[in-house]
Amino acid sequence: MKYLHTMVRVTDLDASLRFYCQALGLTELSRKDYPQGRYTLVFLAAPGDETAQVELTHNWDPETYTGGRNFGHLAYAVEDIYAVCERLRQHGVTINRPPRDGRMAFVRSPDQISIELLQRGAALPPAEPWASMPNTGSW
Amino acid sequence: MKYLHTMVRVTDLDASLRFYCQALGLTELSRKDYPQGRYTLVFLAAPGDETAQVELTHNWDPETYTGGRNFGHLAYAVEDIYAVCERLRQHGVTINRPPRDGRMAFVRSPDQISIELLQRGAALPPAEPWASMPNTGSW
Repeated sequence: MKYLHTMVRVTDLDASLRFYCQALGLTELSRKDYPQGRYTLVFLAAPGDETAQVELTHNWDPETYTGGRNFGHLAYAVEDIYAVCERLRQHGVTINRPPRDGRMAFVRSPDQISIELLQRGAALPPAEPWASMPNTGSW
Repeated sequence: MKYLHTMVRVTDLDASLRFYCQALGLTELSRKDYPQGRYTLVFLAAPGDETAQVELTHNWDPETYTGGRNFGHLAYAVEDIYAVCERLRQHGVTINRPPRDGRMAFVRSPDQISIELLQRGAALPPAEPWASMPNTGSW
């Protein structure tokens, strides 16, 4: 038995790819349009960990996706949590739970999917601007 | 960068473990109670694929978890989709989308998390009772 992917629905495919790929750092593995069903599927994964994927489902007919409490978040280990948070911030992403402890951060996708980032290995030494950055919203 | 887990919140931990472990076939890797925060975390994974996990969060104070459309499903490849669906059914789980094609099925967790099962490799030959089983509900 093998984990394949977590599927999330996305309202705006371009905005979602900016978030998941350019800002968060995942890689686009494949993309396929299904004109008959009027949707596009895009598979993403962390570089070097291609078998555990995220499937983005983009339905062409507009729909706004709200969240529920049964789903919590997706979690990724990263090599440098400060570098990832800085890249997210440069792409306009709010760091809802900044890595004040050098260890853990939370952000949200454009469709409010919560993403947890965890520093691989030992926590980094506290560093600004993160150490004194307050929480924003919920995650 | 590495995928760690998808976190889902569960209302009833025992019912959830029956679903995810006994019926679906995941393995419990670890469990920890946090009395101060009044919650329990349980980490699960597919046997042989222990680094891609599911984190169950059980908050001790009752809460009913509803779903949202932004999250879609978790997907697993299985060795024998008929055997997994039969085991799920024996545990009282409705097969929302039966594997009529020998390839794909959907079920839901007690908290309505949608789970996709995909037959590893080629589809199995059509077989009863699955081939003539109608869909039930949504997934």
